[in-house]
Amino acid sequence: MSIQNPASYIPDPSRIAPLLTRIAARIGASHVVRDAERLAPHLVEGRGLFRGSSPAMLLPGTTDEVAFIVAACANEGVPLVPQGGNTGHVGGQIPFGGLLISLSRMKQIRQLSPLDLTMIAEAGCTLHEVQKAARAQGCLFPLSIASEGTCCIGGNLSTNAGGTAVLRYGNMRELTLGLEVVLPDGRIWNGLSRLRKDNTGYDLKDLFIGAEGTLGIITAASLRLFPAPRARMTAFAGVPGPHAALALFRRLRDVAGDALTGFEFLPRFGLETVLKHIPGTRDPLGAPHATYVLVELTSTRRRDDLTRLAEEVFAEAMEAGELEDAVIATSETQADALWKLRESLSEAQKGEGGSIKHDVSVPVSRVADFVTEASALCEARLPGLRVCAFGHMGDGNIHFNLTQPVGMDKAAFIARWEEFNRIVHDLVAGMEGSISAEHGIGLLKREELARYKPPSALALMATLKQALDPQGLMNPGKVLHHEPSRP
Amino acid sequence: MSIQNPASYIPDPSRIAPLLTRIAARIGASHVVRDAERLAPHLVEGRGLFRGSSPAMLLPGTTDEVAFIVAACANEGVPLVPQGGNTGHVGGQIPFGGLLISLSRMKQIRQLSPLDLTMIAEAGCTLHEVQKAARAQGCLFPLSIASEGTCCIGGNLSTNAGGTAVLRYGNMRELTLGLEVVLPDGRIWNGLSRLRKDNTGYDLKDLFIGAEGTLGIITAASLRLFPAPRARMTAFAGVPGPHAALALFRRLRDVAGDALTGFEFLPRFGLETVLKHIPGTRDPLGAPHATYVLVELTSTRRRDDLTRLAEEVFAEAMEAGELEDAVIATSETQADALWKLRESLSEAQKGEGGSIKHDVSVPVSRVADFVTEASALCEARLPGLRVCAFGHMGDGNIHFNLTQPVGMDKAAFIARWEEFNRIVHDLVAGMEGSISAEHGIGLLKREELARYKPPSALALMATLKQALDPQGLMNPGKVLHHEPSRP
Repeated sequence: MSIQNPASYIPDPSRIAPLLTRIAARIGASHVVRDAERLAPHLVEGRGLFRGSSPAMLLPGTTDEVAFIVAACANEGVPLVPQGGNTGHVGGQIPFGGLLISLSRMKQIRQLSPLDLTMIAEAGCTLHEVQKAARAQGCLFPLSIASEGTCCIGGNLSTNAGGTAVLRYGNMRELTLGLEVVLPDGRIWNGLSRLRKDNTGYDLKDLFIGAEGTLGIITAASLRLFPAPRARMTAFAGVPGPHAALALFRRLRDVAGDALTGFEFLPRFGLETVLKHIPGTRDPLGAPHATYVLVELTSTRRRDDLTRLAEEVFAEAMEAGELEDAVIATSETQADALWKLRESLSEAQKGEGGSIKHDVSVPVSRVADFVTEASALCEARLPGLRVCAFGHMGDGNIHFNLTQPVGMDKAAFIARWEEFNRIVHDLVAGMEGSISAEHGIGLLKREELARYKPPSALALMATLKQALDPQGLMNPGKVLHHEPSRP
Repeated sequence: MSIQNPASYIPDPSRIAPLLTRIAARIGASHVVRDAERLAPHLVEGRGLFRGSSPAMLLPGTTDEVAFIVAACANEGVPLVPQGGNTGHVGGQIPFGGLLISLSRMKQIRQLSPLDLTMIAEAGCTLHEVQKAARAQGCLFPLSIASEGTCCIGGNLSTNAGGTAVLRYGNMRELTLGLEVVLPDGRIWNGLSRLRKDNTGYDLKDLFIGAEGTLGIITAASLRLFPAPRARMTAFAGVPGPHAALALFRRLRDVAGDALTGFEFLPRFGLETVLKHIPGTRDPLGAPHATYVLVELTSTRRRDDLTRLAEEVFAEAMEAGELEDAVIATSETQADALWKLRESLSEAQKGEGGSIKHDVSVPVSRVADFVTEASALCEARLPGLRVCAFGHMGDGNIHFNLTQPVGMDKAAFIARWEEFNRIVHDLVAGMEGSISAEHGIGLLKREELARYKPPSALALMATLKQALDPQGLMNPGKVLHHEPSRP
């Protein structure tokens, strides 16, 4: 696999040393990490695709300290790379010579109002901490992703995180009412609005959400909460294939409406991999099926017979040939066990050798066509290739992962990354889809973005980058190429 | 009332005439309107607060024609003011010397997919036409505002329209998946994505939504649809005051969750005004109450006893002293009659003389405090003043309208606009609210925006305006002051 790294920033020790001294004097010497051993885990991302370098990691404790750091770096022309839980999949959080800035000390929940259904959380809170704080007040913060114990709200915002509850609640963008951001020149924009409606000028927050730290550093966010659900129905169903799964989705959505909070798709190969590699899992259905869906309904109502609602729709779907068998969890433990089958997929795949991964989306109506056609194209290109296409079918978002043929050399397989990217992404583009549904661009997909995004959109992005960060010091080289106009 | 108009653009006939000739050659002479009588209704807004001027109104029929016009005007340095249904309340659609551009000929529904729950509509479709097209396919486009028969989707997008269903479905922003925009230099950005998840670079659409035409001209949008509800429960309830109404709102939201699609507040004075001035209306409750709420629950489920759900919550609320009496509609006709009481409020107010209006929002938890405190302050300032505070309580959005004392001179009352603005907006600002919840800024609130918005936000807005429209030709003078850098 060929990964193009951004042009490394080669730090000039004569500028870096006094800069770090100044910063240490402001935020405390113990919060300027130069020790190679402590730095090391922050310089490589989870799959080892990107390994970077940095003279130091800075750990500010307040927004004012972040602003001080950004202004000082702007003054010296030194790049800054923000990093949250370092769980990103596209290398956006890895520095190549610039200073790392970690907001992990900024963990305050500044405000939480169950009546307003809002929470103001600092960027260093983990997603799990935010979920927990909401729950403690009888509320729900619905964002749910596999890395929630580690990933930080700042990273969730910068990558517009998605996950399994987008179907009902939307991405991080839809869950955000306002932001506090340190701009590339060190000014602080306080936009921590808790309002549902505010039409006073341009929408600024959405500029920074999903910008992967290239336009400024998000230090806190005002988040939307929801009333906590009182009832949950979790089912695991065997379906004859992706088109049947899509038909079942439409049937459920039509009747259950907002009660439908999750609709996850997985193939038999995926389930088998989980059963083989993840201890304590078992097939909840008696016989094998070509594909499966995990369905979740939730409701805030006090007496809501979601099981009856599901059974009714399942019966109709069975009649229509869209569903072969289904099991409905009768306890929270059973529900969690069903979710574990879905959530262990990425982990389980590691046991089967190398994987070439795609995080794509298409209009919902095309998602079954996509899975069918992409699978056929890839299997034809490399006999023995094992397709594991799974994910958030209700959002049109499929993690189209290709597992190496049994016995093939892993490196030889991974070397064909670009070849399979081309097959999959060309098909996605032809279906008016996206080459990055939820993981973002970072470094991994920067060249793919330049290939597939319309030139008018790329030009607009460059205009915004130039206007907000003319020196190009904010997470340089990520998302887009930018020729900085450094003084 | 003192309204500051933007510096008028004085068209140079020697440049305008050949420009209009070129445009007429491209879009057809009949689509360049210079006739004073036909132009007149487009040069003044509904309340007559702003009267403008323009050499001509252009009526392009396609996106390419819009692009041609914008490029030609950019070339000549001639300003363009887009106008939809001319229903805006803040003067954003009125030209002061620049050319008017109306997208009223662009009325195509380019695509509608009930499975994707998406529609691509051109900017000149009225909101009602879009609602109707969705309904014809068993879908719901939920945006609902009083002017829906006249206002256009382009205007709804440019002002991020709100209305009565925001509580459940969000503003226009949340209902938009993608846009097609003609940029200030005449390039077309095609961002008509129909995807639920797409993390490929900066979020561009939200720049243009709510920008009131100052950053480009929206020609089409990809809109989100929803499954059409099968059941509706509409109730009208008498409540002892705003704090009780807020308590009832919380109680309902907690149990009904997403089924709660509308929660509108109105005072006795508002209801009385409607009963007096709007033919065919009657008080649905036996005795008068200090304030009222209109509650709507909807559901997609086939058998959903929303009436029972409402009755249950109402009984609890009555016990708690939050509710005095309520009537639940037993037919669609009755439900429509209840909605008419709410929707006729603005119209009815005209019968009582002059009104000084505020469209504000505060965090939901402060909305009852706001109504109480603002009413007391204003009534103390001018004895006999009649407060009509009504609106979308569930969003924290109140139309805080002040009706003149009986017998006072209307002009003398309206002359005190700024004085009452200051009282109301200072209180709103102190509660971290917004001086324009849904109507936008236009001209009416430009100076108020400069007063209340943080300087860092104003500076960011100016940066964006300068980056996208350096010549300052897109709806100049609206929303923000901008010093153009014309060549």
